[in-house]
Amino acid sequence: MPNSVGTVETQRAVVFDRDRPLTLDSGAVIEQVEVAYETYGELNPERSNAVFICHALSGDAHAAGVHPGDDPDRPGWWDNIVGPGRPLDTDRFFVICANVLGGCRGTTGPSSTDPATGQPYGLRFPLLQVRDLVTVHRALLAKLDIEKLLAAIGGSLGGMQALQWSIDHPGEIDGALVIAASARLSAQNIAFSAVAREAIMRDPDFADGDYYENERRPDRGLGLARMIGHITYLSEQSMREKFGRRIQDAETPRYGFDVDFQVESYLHYQGQSFVERFDANTYLYLGRAMDYFNPFDDPVEVQHRLESGKTGFLVLSFDSDWRFSTTHARDLAGELRAAGGPVTFREISSSHGHDSFLFPTPDYHRTVAGYLDRLAAAAGIASG
Amino acid sequence: MPNSVGTVETQRAVVFDRDRPLTLDSGAVIEQVEVAYETYGELNPERSNAVFICHALSGDAHAAGVHPGDDPDRPGWWDNIVGPGRPLDTDRFFVICANVLGGCRGTTGPSSTDPATGQPYGLRFPLLQVRDLVTVHRALLAKLDIEKLLAAIGGSLGGMQALQWSIDHPGEIDGALVIAASARLSAQNIAFSAVAREAIMRDPDFADGDYYENERRPDRGLGLARMIGHITYLSEQSMREKFGRRIQDAETPRYGFDVDFQVESYLHYQGQSFVERFDANTYLYLGRAMDYFNPFDDPVEVQHRLESGKTGFLVLSFDSDWRFSTTHARDLAGELRAAGGPVTFREISSSHGHDSFLFPTPDYHRTVAGYLDRLAAAAGIASG
Repeated sequence: MPNSVGTVETQRAVVFDRDRPLTLDSGAVIEQVEVAYETYGELNPERSNAVFICHALSGDAHAAGVHPGDDPDRPGWWDNIVGPGRPLDTDRFFVICANVLGGCRGTTGPSSTDPATGQPYGLRFPLLQVRDLVTVHRALLAKLDIEKLLAAIGGSLGGMQALQWSIDHPGEIDGALVIAASARLSAQNIAFSAVAREAIMRDPDFADGDYYENERRPDRGLGLARMIGHITYLSEQSMREKFGRRIQDAETPRYGFDVDFQVESYLHYQGQSFVERFDANTYLYLGRAMDYFNPFDDPVEVQHRLESGKTGFLVLSFDSDWRFSTTHARDLAGELRAAGGPVTFREISSSHGHDSFLFPTPDYHRTVAGYLDRLAAAAGIASG
Repeated sequence: MPNSVGTVETQRAVVFDRDRPLTLDSGAVIEQVEVAYETYGELNPERSNAVFICHALSGDAHAAGVHPGDDPDRPGWWDNIVGPGRPLDTDRFFVICANVLGGCRGTTGPSSTDPATGQPYGLRFPLLQVRDLVTVHRALLAKLDIEKLLAAIGGSLGGMQALQWSIDHPGEIDGALVIAASARLSAQNIAFSAVAREAIMRDPDFADGDYYENERRPDRGLGLARMIGHITYLSEQSMREKFGRRIQDAETPRYGFDVDFQVESYLHYQGQSFVERFDANTYLYLGRAMDYFNPFDDPVEVQHRLESGKTGFLVLSFDSDWRFSTTHARDLAGELRAAGGPVTFREISSSHGHDSFLFPTPDYHRTVAGYLDRLAAAAGIASG
């Protein structure tokens, strides 16, 4: 595996506990928070080369490399951008990725045990804001004795975390790479989010979120939510090229209500494989955090904060992304500029829709690598 | 109600029965078919002024006017285009609208009683093609002793019926007005259709389609399907203008999983009101007919047929329609032209997305009125 970070293991850290619990933006308190995270590369002696990856709704801490015993052909979800010589160059940068608060992949979330009851939280887990996810990332950094990030980078919900982090904690991040994201969901975005949430909550097996001890989980609803989401992650063009109207495993249609077209088969597979690794409550909590995300709610305060720090922004969109289209990115770049932040905006051509941030499109990777390179040069980090 | 057709009543006709059953394109047989239909205006002595409205998935025979006792402010679904002096001018034309085969608003469909068992058909109703819907429309016309249509007109699935009718029965229609439709669903269209179908079929109350005698119907699934569909009927722009990120009945968010944003409230209302008037099985049958719709499957045969008839085509799209975008319409117009059909293609500017065909946009109504006027002049029908 040339350029791969090789074998990695997920680590865990308790970042809030009874003596120092987590207080959320809403005022709600979570007594204990454990974080699952991975790191790639080495922290330099100046502790100045840390790059934090913020993951999207369905992501996790396993961004790169391969877990011991795993199929080497199935590395972490963003492996193509992390490694020696890759844009997030592990020969130069200390790359960190942590499962978000509310997650279901090692970090405390609604499926975790509530210390107060000894039962899984379920919907008794407090509602989260993107700001709270950032609070937990920062607590992890404190645990790692890292005071400053060279960069925070993320796509979709990940980009929203990088953005909120930069606004709330000016001077803590040299550069925020906000990719395929938005400053706020549109009515259409909220509408898709609402039907996905309804799909889960209308599933009788959802049991008001208390399904963990039951024989059945809300797999039908969660699978359906994922299918809906997936349509919005792909572009019409990529679906046409990938599937067209082709029939699955046959030349002619079978004419019936079962899966017949390839695109149906694909969506079913996506839904099914998702329920095997993801928790329905986490889907609800993170989806709702996106709905309510609104970092420019108080533009005067944002301006005040951005002026006091020196964070630069790289805002990237993809021309085939219709979930968070270039209009979203351009509006975001405009608001950042109006608030005084140094902003580079680029639209990348890619046919993969919203999912484009996961693909190694050369222009995209070059843009990310170039931006990180300039941040590194400004911070006095030796080139790779 | 100036220009209204006034009070109307839905009529019923048995168009196939045991002595002359309906044989579908698939070879399946339906023993008895009753059709619910309405007419507006008068058939002229030459029987040459009939205009047939083909309705979309969720439509019915009640296109215009008001049923006795109904709220005069809630006329039929296409009232704005039908009436004296309106584009479908009832002073000149005899306008017919019939609920489609497979429907649930008076015409035989899966909720009808299967004469063979005395029980509702449910999923034992045979699968339908758009061609079969046309067969039943034609049987109704035969019953009304009408041999030829001045025009067939419809939006979405309605446009598909007008298109299939013109291709299969050359010379039977002077002009087909195919609005916000497509010659075939794209992979993305099929994907949305698939998740809507899954929403219904995954509802435990669906009971394999045999829910008619049960206490509960698959309302959650059908409501969800309608919510998904509705997002694709509106444009992003119209949703932004109509709802933005506004909170329902409040200034500030309530922060929770219940309905909070106006757009969520709107979608819930749409879903809820739909289940009160629509049958889940009909949704499945008509949706699947759209998935499989493919009238140009044999282009040589289409060319042969179109050349033998003299049907003209008006193909209309709306610039904000992303369900059946202008690309669909332009492709359709191109295929019709290649097959030798006289085609007029127009893209209309309207912000209402796919639903634009239901709105009285002046340019749209002028275009329809002008096209019908030319058809009428060619047929020697006196101007209004």
